[in-house]
Amino acid sequence: MGEGIRVLILGTGQMGAGIARLVLEKPGLALAGALGRRAGRAGMDVGRAIGLDRDLGIALEADLAAALGRARPDVAIQATCSKLEDAWPEISTLLRHGVPTISIAEEMAYPAYSSPAIAGEMHELARSKGVAVLGTGINPGFILDLLVIALTGVCARIDSITATRVNDLSSYGPSVLEAQGVGLAPEAFAAGVKSGTVAGHFGFPQSIHMIAAALGLNIDRIEEERQPIVSRVRRETPFVSVAAGAVAGCAHTAVAYDGKNPVITLVHPQQIRPELEGVATGDTIEIAGAPNIRLAGSPEIPGGIGTIAVAVNMIPRVLNAAPGLHTMADLPVPAAMMGDARRFVRARAEGCAHG
Amino acid sequence: MGEGIRVLILGTGQMGAGIARLVLEKPGLALAGALGRRAGRAGMDVGRAIGLDRDLGIALEADLAAALGRARPDVAIQATCSKLEDAWPEISTLLRHGVPTISIAEEMAYPAYSSPAIAGEMHELARSKGVAVLGTGINPGFILDLLVIALTGVCARIDSITATRVNDLSSYGPSVLEAQGVGLAPEAFAAGVKSGTVAGHFGFPQSIHMIAAALGLNIDRIEEERQPIVSRVRRETPFVSVAAGAVAGCAHTAVAYDGKNPVITLVHPQQIRPELEGVATGDTIEIAGAPNIRLAGSPEIPGGIGTIAVAVNMIPRVLNAAPGLHTMADLPVPAAMMGDARRFVRARAEGCAHG
Repeated sequence: MGEGIRVLILGTGQMGAGIARLVLEKPGLALAGALGRRAGRAGMDVGRAIGLDRDLGIALEADLAAALGRARPDVAIQATCSKLEDAWPEISTLLRHGVPTISIAEEMAYPAYSSPAIAGEMHELARSKGVAVLGTGINPGFILDLLVIALTGVCARIDSITATRVNDLSSYGPSVLEAQGVGLAPEAFAAGVKSGTVAGHFGFPQSIHMIAAALGLNIDRIEEERQPIVSRVRRETPFVSVAAGAVAGCAHTAVAYDGKNPVITLVHPQQIRPELEGVATGDTIEIAGAPNIRLAGSPEIPGGIGTIAVAVNMIPRVLNAAPGLHTMADLPVPAAMMGDARRFVRARAEGCAHG
Repeated sequence: MGEGIRVLILGTGQMGAGIARLVLEKPGLALAGALGRRAGRAGMDVGRAIGLDRDLGIALEADLAAALGRARPDVAIQATCSKLEDAWPEISTLLRHGVPTISIAEEMAYPAYSSPAIAGEMHELARSKGVAVLGTGINPGFILDLLVIALTGVCARIDSITATRVNDLSSYGPSVLEAQGVGLAPEAFAAGVKSGTVAGHFGFPQSIHMIAAALGLNIDRIEEERQPIVSRVRRETPFVSVAAGAVAGCAHTAVAYDGKNPVITLVHPQQIRPELEGVATGDTIEIAGAPNIRLAGSPEIPGGIGTIAVAVNMIPRVLNAAPGLHTMADLPVPAAMMGDARRFVRARAEGCAHG
């Protein structure tokens, strides 16, 4: 790690490109390479691929095995997909090559929910190769789970938890807006919820099971509801125009029950231009128990830069971690990495003793 | 740990007694014994000593070595003092007997600040005995440090941090009120600050250095200021009566500088009956950086039950931790322990691999 911790980035979309740019900014990190699968981009300079106006002298890779050979990474960050089954082939390749891995795939925040089998295989592979693997991101991964867990830490008893994140989709492009049903008529929204094209937020079960596992709560079932946010006014962004009476977003909630008791409620309405109807964005965590706790912030902690930052800030945590699969609740809290990144990494021998 | 994780409590003051009562409530924990040094109390039943109206059939101990022999604890929680040099003799005895230890002594939150020599010796002793030792509490230990660190984890850059805790001392007794100068004339308050009898909050340097170490910030100096909160109205509690013009509390702030830049500012005004002058209590964390973050809650997370809860909730974290001295920033976040405590503790062999 003489010239810095060598980081390989998988994915050059908005998140992957942002992570790569932050890696370039951080002292002690070195951008070892980037993988981009969009057709016709292989071979272009990574600098251009991640939105810089300069060349970095590194060619964008299309094949992971080849990229690993050239990049010789100390750690990889995966920003290519959302689902565990899509993430797993790349992660297994990385782990087989002995590369500690951070993924921002939503289902990787708590992979045992989507597939205990894959999660188990991932854990064993990582252990056998002596490296750690982690799923992270702002949500799931931080606001509606890790931060909730941390706040329960000063409670003697928990009766129920409600966490709410009201955000603004105005800066997002067509694929995100479609998944939230933005621009649809209410009837089309309802049909989209039924068919699955209106998905709402991706990550509620992961957040709920991360909290439940950390607190020892029993969850019998999760009920999710997706309601249209029907706009009373015209709302416009560069990507979409929503007339009054059409859908400006998706009010998605998940309630986790222990028997008849709703123990965890997560609320995440996402819409464009919320301010046009006086809706304030923000994050709120409310814990009913001993003591009651309520913590809130407005506007919401921004999702894009937040995910980019936490993925990079977790690099030393993953390099220091014991081999195996981890969640954010298993590792020390993330911290902004303000000094040389190498100073946050323990020597291997000490890492073993300190765990 | 068949009948539960055996917990020895050192101290039967408000905190120690509260911790002991919570240990009795939690499935999977067993109160193994309690040490109380107040004269004339040795031998009394622990149930009475911790404020229950029933006997527990355990005699309050006055001697730690004897208590260890009888209690055979799996873990000890120390609630006897604030300063590292007062805490160290008991902690070293516990560690020499191979007992994992949690301390709520304020200076134990970041012991390397008070004495790098003692912190180093503690780390080596704990390692040599194969057990972990941790300082915790609500503040220092959580609100003005761990929670701040966690929130910086979603930041790409930190310019400065300000954390404020406005609390209510109305439920506290004479010793706490004296340390805050409550009831003094402003001149006597100023003299008390000079002489050290008006101490204000205990733990600012610990919180600051915990944050700085986690983020890699450089701190050149810390400037603390203690100002009297002069009441404009009469304020009364069961313990004190403050006339208009007298001191209702201490507005204590600490500013940590990197060169000329104030990088961390901690603000902690403590007073009785703040509501009589319309002062709302609460906790606020503000981070200036990329992104800016502001999270706040009112009223403040209560200090007493919060400290009691986090001390107990950290038991499995300390039992799972690698041997040595830890701070709250080194271990996974605390979580309310809602199931059988034994389920949160990993088997030793797995603990070694998982770290």
